[in-house]
Amino acid sequence: MLQSYLQDTWVTPTATHATADAVRDAVTGETVCHVSSEGLDIAGAFGYARRDGAPALRGLTFHQRASLLDATAAAVRDRREELYALSARAGATPTDARYDVDGGIRVLRDYADRARAELPDASHLVEGPAERLGRGQDFLGVHLVSPSPGLMLQVNAFNFPVWAPLEKLAQAVLAGMPSVVKAATPTAYLTEHLVRTVSEAGVLPAGALQMIVGSVRPALDLLREQDVLSFTGSAATAATLRTHPELVARSVRFNAEADSVNAIVLAPDVPPGSPLFAAFVREVVTEMTVKAGQKCTAIRRVLVPREHEGAALDAIASELAGVIIGNPASEGVGMGAVVSLEQRADVRRAVRTIARSGRIVHGDPDKVRVVDADPERGAFLDTILVSADPDAAAPHEVEPFGPAATVLAYRGTPHAMDLLARGRGSLAASVVSDDLAWTTGFLRSAAPWHGRLHLLDSTNMTQTTGHGSPLPALRHGGPGRAGGGSEMAGIRGILDLMQRTALQVSPRLLESLGTTSLS
Amino acid sequence: MLQSYLQDTWVTPTATHATADAVRDAVTGETVCHVSSEGLDIAGAFGYARRDGAPALRGLTFHQRASLLDATAAAVRDRREELYALSARAGATPTDARYDVDGGIRVLRDYADRARAELPDASHLVEGPAERLGRGQDFLGVHLVSPSPGLMLQVNAFNFPVWAPLEKLAQAVLAGMPSVVKAATPTAYLTEHLVRTVSEAGVLPAGALQMIVGSVRPALDLLREQDVLSFTGSAATAATLRTHPELVARSVRFNAEADSVNAIVLAPDVPPGSPLFAAFVREVVTEMTVKAGQKCTAIRRVLVPREHEGAALDAIASELAGVIIGNPASEGVGMGAVVSLEQRADVRRAVRTIARSGRIVHGDPDKVRVVDADPERGAFLDTILVSADPDAAAPHEVEPFGPAATVLAYRGTPHAMDLLARGRGSLAASVVSDDLAWTTGFLRSAAPWHGRLHLLDSTNMTQTTGHGSPLPALRHGGPGRAGGGSEMAGIRGILDLMQRTALQVSPRLLESLGTTSLS
Repeated sequence: MLQSYLQDTWVTPTATHATADAVRDAVTGETVCHVSSEGLDIAGAFGYARRDGAPALRGLTFHQRASLLDATAAAVRDRREELYALSARAGATPTDARYDVDGGIRVLRDYADRARAELPDASHLVEGPAERLGRGQDFLGVHLVSPSPGLMLQVNAFNFPVWAPLEKLAQAVLAGMPSVVKAATPTAYLTEHLVRTVSEAGVLPAGALQMIVGSVRPALDLLREQDVLSFTGSAATAATLRTHPELVARSVRFNAEADSVNAIVLAPDVPPGSPLFAAFVREVVTEMTVKAGQKCTAIRRVLVPREHEGAALDAIASELAGVIIGNPASEGVGMGAVVSLEQRADVRRAVRTIARSGRIVHGDPDKVRVVDADPERGAFLDTILVSADPDAAAPHEVEPFGPAATVLAYRGTPHAMDLLARGRGSLAASVVSDDLAWTTGFLRSAAPWHGRLHLLDSTNMTQTTGHGSPLPALRHGGPGRAGGGSEMAGIRGILDLMQRTALQVSPRLLESLGTTSLS
Repeated sequence: MLQSYLQDTWVTPTATHATADAVRDAVTGETVCHVSSEGLDIAGAFGYARRDGAPALRGLTFHQRASLLDATAAAVRDRREELYALSARAGATPTDARYDVDGGIRVLRDYADRARAELPDASHLVEGPAERLGRGQDFLGVHLVSPSPGLMLQVNAFNFPVWAPLEKLAQAVLAGMPSVVKAATPTAYLTEHLVRTVSEAGVLPAGALQMIVGSVRPALDLLREQDVLSFTGSAATAATLRTHPELVARSVRFNAEADSVNAIVLAPDVPPGSPLFAAFVREVVTEMTVKAGQKCTAIRRVLVPREHEGAALDAIASELAGVIIGNPASEGVGMGAVVSLEQRADVRRAVRTIARSGRIVHGDPDKVRVVDADPERGAFLDTILVSADPDAAAPHEVEPFGPAATVLAYRGTPHAMDLLARGRGSLAASVVSDDLAWTTGFLRSAAPWHGRLHLLDSTNMTQTTGHGSPLPALRHGGPGRAGGGSEMAGIRGILDLMQRTALQVSPRLLESLGTTSLS
């Protein structure tokens, strides 16, 4: 029975194995643990966060909060091998595990450096320049950005059990706000180990980090005006949370990062066989196979000019054929399992729906050859490449959250622009081209539909951090289907969690605020 | 029967006087017009905005859009006398009318100047500086802020029939987005005259401005991912709009400006009889009487130190006694009517609820002496000053949207801080003090609960633009009860309506975007 971490104490829920949910090993199907939030004192935990955690963090300067992130990063790094080992149980290869664990450490360090470089050594920020509002010299306008005396309730997805809580923690700590992490059930044991690691290191103030295992529902009623609900997961869950009566009545800030049907677009100027074409193929295959395609940013739609469809299908299928699937702990395995048998069933269903308007070019949704594992007890899936009718609805609406992508042939640039927008808003898209004029025109049309555009060309293709990687410097979050949220984007992600208040002040009061202007 | 302005045409609804709503003169009770949206082709209007208005605005640069605002301001100014005259029918004095009409003209001009000074002569904005994302020099990160190819649906409150649509229009036009204005029913004839004035001047591109009279309900189902719903009004309506299934499913951007229970705080250091104390009294009386207290920013709670409660009540009541109430068109009248008899009934109810824990010190909710008008046929109300128990619930929760305020005596600074926060989030608060250390400490606690803090002292009290006035330079919108939205705040209000997209680009592509960096 997995414990929760509330009020500096590891707490066992009152549920029995019969009433709790079992979490199974993605590779062997064995039970890893049971989870439940039954009997947990969540109101007590929220009170502790607000009464103890919040003032402790608010009382520190941005630079002092940055030091907490450094210490947290060091604590996780010291024990990262334990997290790697545990990650295999969720189906993650060593590469996948590093993506999650080292990615989380990097985001903490990046944010610590960024806060020291771009924020003052003060607990709040005065945004200027001061503007004269009246006729005289003594009535000035500025904005004060100050910590909200509330908590961040993190509701995370199962796919990044380490990176996601750390990414949100980095921004919350810098904003002066304690976190209560709700661990996603299928990988709760990984988030639990992360929180245990951080709490045992004793690097954060009491109340700055707590964790709920099991259902988050009882926590929603407890949110208040100064809190933030930061959500990553499905659009359906986002809609449920967003319309929760308590959230609506209190205008609780809600940030959603929802799965989206992300695309890559191969421009007409990139000839098959060219190095840039090869980079395009690599990008598609990487997105399909890293974490077995279980990334909210992963490429689902591959838009190619009609004349290059055959070449693209051949090249992608040929690369996929070389990917070894199996026990992620075994040598040479390139792709592990998806997180659960339920997840596998979902992906199979989604792929079949999409393939109705076309055909499966590579892979078999129902069969897979695996190394060192039982393909039926483990949640293994073949890589699946579909070729579908670009004008059908399903490829733009249905998201197989696994190692699957669909190639869609477009009939010209306006058609490609229309197809891209049919995703109704995505976290990220890649555009692959060496034609500057074409790309500039294309991105004007594509930009309003995306949180991030990854523009690959011959000059940067060897330097890219990859289509799927959200970076602290850049906005993570997209419009429409992607949830309409925003995280990171450098310092913006911190300020967005704080309250921006317009101040109408005299010069002498402005001076007495004793803070640094960022302008 | 008031017409709507859709697809460049004035359209009469299909409703009859029996099925439409009658709008009555606030002063005489006569019927001014009937309103209904029955039979209006709202889908056609939305299509027109998206197909014609949006590309026309998006195709312009920020500076060209600024010129549209100047032309709109000039068109309204040319015919402002007509709007002043019509305003009297809504109960507005000439001062109230200028507040609304000239305020709207000013916001257009301010935004035009601001866009020319702070934005590039381009249709979009590249936010830098460019940051190196990979190991080489060729993979850079910036953000592109570009117009969303959607529309702004404005749902405005009745109290600023001219300022509110213009304030939203200024930001929408600069963001490259057409507006569909839903006119608030009680003052729809004023907004109608404004839109007629602007459309007859022919200063905006076709489709950039349309107006719906009557119910907005049919329009909500038509909102899409790239649209914005910009709302000003009650918290109850905000909750209904926010949870509309189509808005939720498509993550339609929603900005709410809700009424809040705003406060003024007299600090312990300000002695009764001092010039700063007099400024405090003036501020309270102005907020109670301008627009007969029908401002979302108006002061409802007057927090005073217990030892100065008597002096504050006496001074405010004595000023209120001098306010002449009556026909707003008559000489010497300082306060007109509230907008309708229904509004008057609401205010009476609210005042009685608040007075349950105390007493009415000035005014009579049920009786008023008026000049040149019938106090029963017109929606006239006396100014009402209540003294209530500061620890009761009602004064912090119930908002009499009219010429009423409640004095609450606090027992020390922590008590004052707690009382202020019991408003659960407000648009604006004033703090009146010459004690810099006290004010600095107080505002740290007050800031997270407010969108704007108006900090009055002896040096700026003669220069203030007033507690109730939102300014283009400053954020308008507050947390919690105030709706959690943000408008204006200078250029921020424009960029918030646009899509911010992270770009991962090569230097050569960044250069080819050919735009100016703001950093």
